[in-house]
Amino acid sequence: MDLHRREFAALMLGGAAALGLAGRAVAEADPLPSWSAGRAKDAIVAFVHATTDPASPNFVPLAERIATFDQDGTLWVEHPIYTQVVYCFDRVPALIKVKPELASVEPFRTVLTGNREAIADLGLEALIKVAAATLTGMDVDTFRDDVAKWLAHARDPRWKLPYTDLVYQPQIELLGYLRANGYRTYIVTGGGQDFVRVYAEAVYGIPPEQVVGSAGAVSYQDGANGPVLIKEPKLLLNDDNAGKPEGIHLMIGRRPYLAFGNSTGDRQMLEYTKAGHGRRLALLTLHDDSAREYAYGPAQGLPDTKVGRFTPELYSEAIKDGWIVVSMKNDWKRIFAFE
Amino acid sequence: MDLHRREFAALMLGGAAALGLAGRAVAEADPLPSWSAGRAKDAIVAFVHATTDPASPNFVPLAERIATFDQDGTLWVEHPIYTQVVYCFDRVPALIKVKPELASVEPFRTVLTGNREAIADLGLEALIKVAAATLTGMDVDTFRDDVAKWLAHARDPRWKLPYTDLVYQPQIELLGYLRANGYRTYIVTGGGQDFVRVYAEAVYGIPPEQVVGSAGAVSYQDGANGPVLIKEPKLLLNDDNAGKPEGIHLMIGRRPYLAFGNSTGDRQMLEYTKAGHGRRLALLTLHDDSAREYAYGPAQGLPDTKVGRFTPELYSEAIKDGWIVVSMKNDWKRIFAFE
Repeated sequence: MDLHRREFAALMLGGAAALGLAGRAVAEADPLPSWSAGRAKDAIVAFVHATTDPASPNFVPLAERIATFDQDGTLWVEHPIYTQVVYCFDRVPALIKVKPELASVEPFRTVLTGNREAIADLGLEALIKVAAATLTGMDVDTFRDDVAKWLAHARDPRWKLPYTDLVYQPQIELLGYLRANGYRTYIVTGGGQDFVRVYAEAVYGIPPEQVVGSAGAVSYQDGANGPVLIKEPKLLLNDDNAGKPEGIHLMIGRRPYLAFGNSTGDRQMLEYTKAGHGRRLALLTLHDDSAREYAYGPAQGLPDTKVGRFTPELYSEAIKDGWIVVSMKNDWKRIFAFE
Repeated sequence: MDLHRREFAALMLGGAAALGLAGRAVAEADPLPSWSAGRAKDAIVAFVHATTDPASPNFVPLAERIATFDQDGTLWVEHPIYTQVVYCFDRVPALIKVKPELASVEPFRTVLTGNREAIADLGLEALIKVAAATLTGMDVDTFRDDVAKWLAHARDPRWKLPYTDLVYQPQIELLGYLRANGYRTYIVTGGGQDFVRVYAEAVYGIPPEQVVGSAGAVSYQDGANGPVLIKEPKLLLNDDNAGKPEGIHLMIGRRPYLAFGNSTGDRQMLEYTKAGHGRRLALLTLHDDSAREYAYGPAQGLPDTKVGRFTPELYSEAIKDGWIVVSMKNDWKRIFAFE
């Protein structure tokens, strides 16, 4: 019933905004209270006005209003380790119960030690092995239920809060502001599509069909209680880098007018968005607030890290091409709802 | 502007229906005037009432109201040859201009003769060769423009009308009736996703992001005027048979409450739909009207043909499992808008 009420409210808001009824009221109330006054907030508000005012030369028809958001590091915390990777590690003990022979095989042996430093040093190949073993082989409903159960109990070690509390409040406001102005908001993430879909509707108001992510094949099979879809260890869409505009074409079939990212994995999505005709907006979150969140990337002169691939080169491209770099420290009054 | 107005109207109708405001008015006006009174029409109306009345034990929240429709033979004419295959054949002369060496190579040589009988006898392997050569290698915008141009000029040989006029009027009414009751309508077709997206919004009111079809990979590349997405001869999703529920999971992530097909290629989609909890509706179009359209499949005791894979086995499964078999002859007062 909650989903029902929320979707209905979104429909009504979208409709009212399209009629121009809600426009003034929304502007008066400040739809982005967690955003500091400044260039980033101004750019967002000017973009929305320019693309939704029927008298504007850059007016965009309702059907074409698409906004795409990266997730990790753009909508929620990605540092020091992606949440989905934590999930995979946490699932290893259950996996070993079913396949005890893996306990003595790397990288499962290292994961089982619980040694955080050794685990952090595992390379990409090891991560792929753990992901393949923990994210496939079950039907999609079983997977969804397991992720939901894990999310309800897992806690981030720094804030001691559920991971789904570590979403950026300014972005929640931005998603709502865009939807109130007729934009359909999509997540376009390198993370697993099935994983993000479990909580995206409750956390971001983004329904499953508007989550584009890295996706594995599923196979349709006869189960004990009717047909099931089994998650297979075969990658269909690697939704990162060039895979982001490719995934957008596959799943949406329209070029976004606004795209928001935070790393080199978002570069092609932002370039693709900006290259469209008319007015488009590309934004990047800069993690420069070690007190309230983390600082990594060009603001700190840090090298590219395992997560947070916001390199000095990406920063230069953003400045050169007119992308808006959003400083978490300066542009966001509040980062988390729980602050 | 037309899209804008249509989408807005849909939003408003959906909202009104959710409030229960439009329910009675819609019922009074008969939203399905081209459907004859009878079991099929009754089943549809009863299903919509049962799943949208908040007091019903089978009420479905707005966000979960998904209806999926096959296209060829379900929404428009597929006989004697799929429209997209005609498009591929028609593109061969232009292909030969660019690659003259193909003129003497099969199956292109046969296609160039224009001999309809010989062309009809080309096997699946030949069709795949023609499709790969004519549907890939260009960027997605060039492809879309070319299909749009072809659709504007191509004529069906029997009715001498654009192919996009050969849509079934009762289905257009059904799509509108479902949308007015908060259902999001999707096409789930074995045909090419990029092809169907060109006209689905204008013809069916179904936007690109609600077209799930067989999809090839695209590759993101630098073009002369910015980045482009090039269509590659690599199949990502074969959206037929088991590929339909698999594609529904990939692109929608929710199980449909209503599914409508007409062939063995839709069997798994219908089974998957019916296997969901609560009230679900599965329907099959039976092509039994040789006067107004075509007759093929079990109604005529015909064997499985190249198109129209509605076999006697599928008919038996439908009867056994309570799917609604819709007779074009008896259940549809009018088949085409131009009648």
